[in-house]
Amino acid sequence: MPLSWEQFYAENPPPSDLDQKRHYVQDFCQKHLNNGSRIVLITSGGTTVPLEHHTVRFVDNFSAGTRGSASAEYFLEIGYAVIFLYRLKSIEPYLRHVMGSRFLDMLEIDKSADNTSISVKPSEVHNILPVLTKYNAAKESQKFLQVGFTTLSDYLWLLKTICETLPSFGARAMIYLAAAVSDFYVPATQMPTHKMQSQDGAPTIQLDLVPKILQPLVSSWVPNAYVISFKLETDENILIKKARGALLKYKHKIVLANLMDTRRSRVVAVTPEDETEIILTEEQKQKGLELEKFIVDYLSEEHSKFIMESTAQ
Amino acid sequence: MPLSWEQFYAENPPPSDLDQKRHYVQDFCQKHLNNGSRIVLITSGGTTVPLEHHTVRFVDNFSAGTRGSASAEYFLEIGYAVIFLYRLKSIEPYLRHVMGSRFLDMLEIDKSADNTSISVKPSEVHNILPVLTKYNAAKESQKFLQVGFTTLSDYLWLLKTICETLPSFGARAMIYLAAAVSDFYVPATQMPTHKMQSQDGAPTIQLDLVPKILQPLVSSWVPNAYVISFKLETDENILIKKARGALLKYKHKIVLANLMDTRRSRVVAVTPEDETEIILTEEQKQKGLELEKFIVDYLSEEHSKFIMESTAQ
Repeated sequence: MPLSWEQFYAENPPPSDLDQKRHYVQDFCQKHLNNGSRIVLITSGGTTVPLEHHTVRFVDNFSAGTRGSASAEYFLEIGYAVIFLYRLKSIEPYLRHVMGSRFLDMLEIDKSADNTSISVKPSEVHNILPVLTKYNAAKESQKFLQVGFTTLSDYLWLLKTICETLPSFGARAMIYLAAAVSDFYVPATQMPTHKMQSQDGAPTIQLDLVPKILQPLVSSWVPNAYVISFKLETDENILIKKARGALLKYKHKIVLANLMDTRRSRVVAVTPEDETEIILTEEQKQKGLELEKFIVDYLSEEHSKFIMESTAQ
Repeated sequence: MPLSWEQFYAENPPPSDLDQKRHYVQDFCQKHLNNGSRIVLITSGGTTVPLEHHTVRFVDNFSAGTRGSASAEYFLEIGYAVIFLYRLKSIEPYLRHVMGSRFLDMLEIDKSADNTSISVKPSEVHNILPVLTKYNAAKESQKFLQVGFTTLSDYLWLLKTICETLPSFGARAMIYLAAAVSDFYVPATQMPTHKMQSQDGAPTIQLDLVPKILQPLVSSWVPNAYVISFKLETDENILIKKARGALLKYKHKIVLANLMDTRRSRVVAVTPEDETEIILTEEQKQKGLELEKFIVDYLSEEHSKFIMESTAQ
């Protein structure tokens, strides 16, 4: 049996800079609460589970952060304030378009002027310009806040802290849980302090189950928000059934169900009453469109309906 | 008991692009063999140990890659050809100076000219210029080859493959083993194919010992090369003893011994006969000097003596 979520927080200490991060988030929320904006918390990337207190080794739950970082850009484009809770070193909005490329290779030195200057090579300008323009617009709007984590425990603390800042938005808050969160962890009490030594022989790592955090999130932390979770499977036959199971259990609004092999071109938005396929055609893909644009358009419309219904009640 | 190294390679398949990487390395070596250059293989960063064949989860042996990436720059500066075998996403030479900084924040768009151009902000030029100049010089010299890995198994395959290309350099080849290599792994034969499911309960991970690869490296792969390993401990009292133990066991040339807390400012170069402290003073640090410069200067001198002795025999 996993711990209760209350026990988990009691046994695993918060990150040392939690108060500082809480203040950033509160300031950000206050500003956008006043201007009537909608807000979305996006989680992105994988979590790590340390195997030692002085962490040399950890179990990593890999996720590049593609879904979350792309979605953040589209939410910003249609006017949402975005809190991006992401695994440090995972893919970030805007930066994702210039990541693979090697920064220093793009630059050239110009010594002809009085002062040495450095420019982006003319052949690279068309790649960087649209990204840089959108990035500057997002910065200028002050609607984008990034909050980083590495470990599972830090993720769960920050998720709770940010959620607790959102209830004043009521139905205008959306929670978009795209991070790949580990199901397992090593309890702080069972962790060795120092590096495991090889002369002690090959170790065995005993993992514990992580409590399902969607339960308190939906029922206690943000009971009025529009909450979306993801379900990633490899078997089409159990996908929708599992998505419905999660909705029934946690009582949130939508599960975005996707299969590992087709996750870049198809998700099914599962609600208690309905299933809606969201698809990126090969033709759209060739034009440089992304599935996340259609996911965000769909969610934004559903969110509008939800806000109207909530206000009408 | 760990597997023998032969068994390890027999049971763990090579990376799919091994042949391609071997060709790159062979071409690189051929060029520098002909021009009489010295060559150093630097390993850098940590290794991962996958827990499933379709890897979602893995155990990571963390190392940022600071030592290896800084050392690579100093070896290039004094004329060595450098093969940099590094963990993908770990710190890279030159790029390390601009990493923390946010690339897109450094740029500004200039629409005043006929064509839109993008420049590095004047306030950032003094940060980027020295790095970019050195980076361009290294590229122009064609003495720098980067080879990436992620898993322990890929690392061990690439290490062997690169070493097997180096014997023609004789004593002119140096092997500088700065990577943090996992002592443990999950054998391919014991790995589940699919993602571990949480409904099956909390799993136990049984790890095996990795064979000590320094043994075949020194005795078989590059018997004439100048081989340097690292020893990182937390206890000063056992540091030198452990370094000497490693030299006695593997019969390579130098162990660079360092303590976790002081590793940025002090290493002890331990040889069978001698101990030499290499230190970065607080004053030198304030001037922007790095310990790796002094390590590389020391090693390069010792390597010169070694080459002379080898030629004299």
